Amino acid sequence: MSASTIDPTDPVFELHRGGKLAVASTVPLTNRDDLSRAYTPGVARVCEAIAAEPALADDYTWTSHTVAVVTDGSAVLGLGNIGARAAMPVMEGKAVLFKQFGGVDAVPICLDTQDVDEIVSVVTALAPSFGGINLEDISAPRCFEIERRLDEALDIPVFHDDQHGTAVVVLAALRNAVTLLDRKLSDLRVVISGAGAAGVAVTKMLIAGGVNPAEILVCDSQGIIHRGRDNLSAVKAELAELTNASGRSGDIAQALVGADVFIGVSGGSVSESAIAGMASGGIVFALANPNPEVHPDVAARHAAVVATGRSDFPNQINNVLAFPGIFRGALDARATRITDGMKIAAAEAIAGVVADSLAADMIVPSPLDDRVAPAVAAAVAEAARRDGVARA
Amino acid sequence: MSASTIDPTDPVFELHRGGKLAVASTVPLTNRDDLSRAYTPGVARVCEAIAAEPALADDYTWTSHTVAVVTDGSAVLGLGNIGARAAMPVMEGKAVLFKQFGGVDAVPICLDTQDVDEIVSVVTALAPSFGGINLEDISAPRCFEIERRLDEALDIPVFHDDQHGTAVVVLAALRNAVTLLDRKLSDLRVVISGAGAAGVAVTKMLIAGGVNPAEILVCDSQGIIHRGRDNLSAVKAELAELTNASGRSGDIAQALVGADVFIGVSGGSVSESAIAGMASGGIVFALANPNPEVHPDVAARHAAVVATGRSDFPNQINNVLAFPGIFRGALDARATRITDGMKIAAAEAIAGVVADSLAADMIVPSPLDDRVAPAVAAAVAEAARRDGVARA
Repeated sequence: MSASTIDPTDPVFELHRGGKLAVASTVPLTNRDDLSRAYTPGVARVCEAIAAEPALADDYTWTSHTVAVVTDGSAVLGLGNIGARAAMPVMEGKAVLFKQFGGVDAVPICLDTQDVDEIVSVVTALAPSFGGINLEDISAPRCFEIERRLDEALDIPVFHDDQHGTAVVVLAALRNAVTLLDRKLSDLRVVISGAGAAGVAVTKMLIAGGVNPAEILVCDSQGIIHRGRDNLSAVKAELAELTNASGRSGDIAQALVGADVFIGVSGGSVSESAIAGMASGGIVFALANPNPEVHPDVAARHAAVVATGRSDFPNQINNVLAFPGIFRGALDARATRITDGMKIAAAEAIAGVVADSLAADMIVPSPLDDRVAPAVAAAVAEAARRDGVARA
Repeated sequence: MSASTIDPTDPVFELHRGGKLAVASTVPLTNRDDLSRAYTPGVARVCEAIAAEPALADDYTWTSHTVAVVTDGSAVLGLGNIGARAAMPVMEGKAVLFKQFGGVDAVPICLDTQDVDEIVSVVTALAPSFGGINLEDISAPRCFEIERRLDEALDIPVFHDDQHGTAVVVLAALRNAVTLLDRKLSDLRVVISGAGAAGVAVTKMLIAGGVNPAEILVCDSQGIIHRGRDNLSAVKAELAELTNASGRSGDIAQALVGADVFIGVSGGSVSESAIAGMASGGIVFALANPNPEVHPDVAARHAAVVATGRSDFPNQINNVLAFPGIFRGALDARATRITDGMKIAAAEAIAGVVADSLAADMIVPSPLDDRVAPAVAAAVAEAARRDGVARA
């Protein structure tokens, strides 16, 4: 596509002209007195106060409500490694959602480097400017190391949304599906297709949320991950240790035989016959976008509850249900990090919003449901205090 | 000062509570259609277009109107090296001024490093996120190397405001003072007190603007800078080569004997007797804040035109007259850098705003004069095109 092939009346390009964000001043500036308070000489007193007592930055700068949305453009949507510049429209969109749903002021930061060490040192250097770091669209397995090192280095929340945002909403949806079907998380046999950022995080989140790790099978393009497989990456070797206690091997169809839950975060596809092999009354979350691993209408022939990542089918598993409220809650509590407890609390809160209207086509709220973020924020802030990571 | 000693009714702290900035969305987001345009799946088309043709980022992201205000907190106002966190209120204030006067969306970036190499690599990595880089409150001589290396590395404008913003407004004021006194820039004998960021930039700007370099004397704490002085830093050695053709030495009082212009950007003080030694009908710009090198009332006994950096005396030399319009013009022209020609054009435009109302107490516009930034922006954009650095 080039400039000459863009249709200027295309509503998507029309909407994107000039970008989707602005910086606004929240203070008056109409006369010399205003100027001398917001800027020199008055501002010097605020600087001196923070220099003497750094925690005052939380009260007297905008960092307390500000998050950096950081990407290196290496794994943008389903588009792959399109680089920093081309990633900006997604990061701006993310900032729009942060503001709209969480009241969080998010600044898109697209980095002109894909070197792990450089990304870690750049984000570490930026950290005093923000109250939190939302990592976005960074390819696996680099994303795991980047997040781990930043989480260790910084005293503000670091959250890779492609991992944990997805994982939180999946857990929320699974909790409600299980409630609806009168099952228990701990009794489920679960197959997860995909061992990238989302697959790894979903696996760990489900375990933290109460699914029996022995009964989880994670599949990648080469089939079920098990201890006996050769050439496992560090991340997959960890998954092999965590899950699949009986050491099963085989392809995805073999994995699905008798399974209660299928969760697709792979971008691959799964045949109808494989889905048909699941236990009856099962749960299918086919989350690849825009093409689900199995079409939801096909899945519905065999499963009791079906969810996708798409807005044109019921039960859209959309990260926007999680990240605005999670960061709002973390910032409200001045949390130093985001714990598993905070993520589980977020999943419970999302699930809770539709608890009274639970149905097979209503296991998660609509992405536009404005009850979600406040409920998530309150639950996350409370969990931060319970987990001892809150400063307020 | 600590939290307990801050008076909560102090209007400066009251105004700063929660900071002074917010991020605003400029697109609607009220239904699923909006969501699918501003975010997935629609946004993917915009990303693909930019991946194919990177210059489209200028049209379809917010970078075309966005500037990073970058500091390392090493030389904040007159407060010195107070660090990244304590610098934030100043950077937010700068962003407020960028928006108010230039319509430029500025993001404060306070870096947790004062290492020159690290600052250069961090800002280089950030560059795709912004349309320009305003360096702020970085100590000399580090600021010179940081700016030079970034200017070489990046294809967007890099501008250290403490140097060039001050220099542009000084040139504007001096042009008008000279017009008022019916003198010529090229005939002036000029003494500049201070060889830090501002002193160096003022010296070079005055030379670029038409002052005879042979007749400029730059003084630091050890007196007049001349070729014969020992242990000159690289920057001061360059000043020694550029200026003071007759190789004069001595202290500031000796430098001022017979001088037409005194420009103080040092923070030091100059005695009344030294000022009295200047040629009659002279010009004194005593710009140290909050304590001018010589009190303006004292200077007025001996000089025809007096300016300070203070808002409570006439002729305030304030960078806000320059930076919003300079960046607005550079962004409008999609300039790849900021040339001397653009800075001189900015100075001429600032001077021009009060050309019809010129008086000894009106050689520069008020910092709140909203005619200034548009005039500067238009002149700077035109100069960018003339100098061949404009992409639009």
